[in-house]
Amino acid sequence: MAEILKGAPVAKQMSEELLERANRLKAAGVNPTLAILRVGENEADLSYERGILSRCEKTGVTPRQIILPADTTQEAVEAEILKINEDPSIHAALMFRPLPKHLDERRICELLDPRKDADCMTQGSLAGVFTGRGAGFAPCTAQSVMEILSYYGVDPCGKNAVVIGRSLVIGKPVAMMLMGANATVTVCHTKTVNTEEITRRADILVVAAGRPRVVGGSFVKPGATVIDVGINVDESGALCGDVNFEEAEKTAGAITPVPGGVGSVTTAVLCKHVIEAAEGR
Amino acid sequence: MAEILKGAPVAKQMSEELLERANRLKAAGVNPTLAILRVGENEADLSYERGILSRCEKTGVTPRQIILPADTTQEAVEAEILKINEDPSIHAALMFRPLPKHLDERRICELLDPRKDADCMTQGSLAGVFTGRGAGFAPCTAQSVMEILSYYGVDPCGKNAVVIGRSLVIGKPVAMMLMGANATVTVCHTKTVNTEEITRRADILVVAAGRPRVVGGSFVKPGATVIDVGINVDESGALCGDVNFEEAEKTAGAITPVPGGVGSVTTAVLCKHVIEAAEGR
Repeated sequence: MAEILKGAPVAKQMSEELLERANRLKAAGVNPTLAILRVGENEADLSYERGILSRCEKTGVTPRQIILPADTTQEAVEAEILKINEDPSIHAALMFRPLPKHLDERRICELLDPRKDADCMTQGSLAGVFTGRGAGFAPCTAQSVMEILSYYGVDPCGKNAVVIGRSLVIGKPVAMMLMGANATVTVCHTKTVNTEEITRRADILVVAAGRPRVVGGSFVKPGATVIDVGINVDESGALCGDVNFEEAEKTAGAITPVPGGVGSVTTAVLCKHVIEAAEGR
Repeated sequence: MAEILKGAPVAKQMSEELLERANRLKAAGVNPTLAILRVGENEADLSYERGILSRCEKTGVTPRQIILPADTTQEAVEAEILKINEDPSIHAALMFRPLPKHLDERRICELLDPRKDADCMTQGSLAGVFTGRGAGFAPCTAQSVMEILSYYGVDPCGKNAVVIGRSLVIGKPVAMMLMGANATVTVCHTKTVNTEEITRRADILVVAAGRPRVVGGSFVKPGATVIDVGINVDESGALCGDVNFEEAEKTAGAITPVPGGVGSVTTAVLCKHVIEAAEGR
């Protein structure tokens, strides 16, 4: 039976530390503030927003909600981004995506100042993830993977790490961050022909395949650490990850659950980015 | 005995194609122009410059040399970069690096317009390599690896590719480009503990270790394609790669020589970037 790497204690420890830092900032006259830009009333956005607001309270971050109607114009969204850039009382911003289809999302994303880009939506922030330097922050979910490894004492240095998925939101950034932590990283994707053989060599296996329970027990090296980034709804309506948890936990040394794993840490990482921006990192 | 993947025929074919495109541009009134910015009289820079000038002639690219003294000021170099940005008759630029130590190289690099960044010295261009979209061009040497694979009919799709080295100039960009070509990519580096075991699984092995002849025959899977990006001078004063060529060619299916391999293709890639910039890619 594998150790279950729950996200809640990671988020709790991060929140306590962030609250201290927020209080120090406030004592110095700086009120760490996160702009939350939402277009429309999508249920997924609203649910994530509730999580963020709750985490802000625990970490001493002040949320500032900006809500536009679903039929808003390109110009209106762009104007809000420019206001965020210019407002020195806002330290970082998150915009829920995807935006409604009539909006040019990429153009809007690029307008944000990378220094205020709490969830890596600009090319400038992505460049920073690739180069390991420069403005901006890593995508919150990708960084959550690293926070979980760190909290549970899994040092990637010299380990074989395999990432399934090559998206800009998870796969590529997490590969770069693992490489930055000195792991030897392999990225598998839809064109990989021998995925199971490759993942069976992984000391650390990060799964962001985007499909429910595609990684079975036979993919897992005995004793490996398995981080499941997937969130899917299965046929019965239950939440599940990209890993077949029941199978994998028999082989893995440690494994994150879904729900209650990576997803529980993202809002804490988001607030960490706000605090770091406010500290003038 | 492995097939020897010489760079010269790759560069020759590219040059012929580029010359046609340059002639079409000139017929339309556009004279594809490369600014070459050199500070001082470093022998390595002068040698590379001679190669570039010769390649420009073969490809129909007009070089425009900008030469500053070794004791030039930060302001003077920055002013030249800004002039390049503003001059519509210059389509792309290359600056020899490293600059003399009294200059802030990173700051100078970042001033260049990524659309004119022929050798990926800006964060904006690096972001493009990472994301597979956006302004700018890949580093010439990294792209030379891909040009060689393409010329010799080695399709990375579904192959296991291993890159030794994680620099921003070669290792990381070539890993991204191989991944973009649908290879399953592993990056090894100085903290990798089982490099030899990993490289022995590589169908395509790209070596940018930066040390002479560190990859011996035992690192190579029988039949593999080995691309040696290294250029070193050995104890006897001879040029050699990062691969022990005599050993590796006994096992490899195909291998690039040093000299005469990857290094022979970089100036053709540079000129390709100038033509693409002039075409308004």
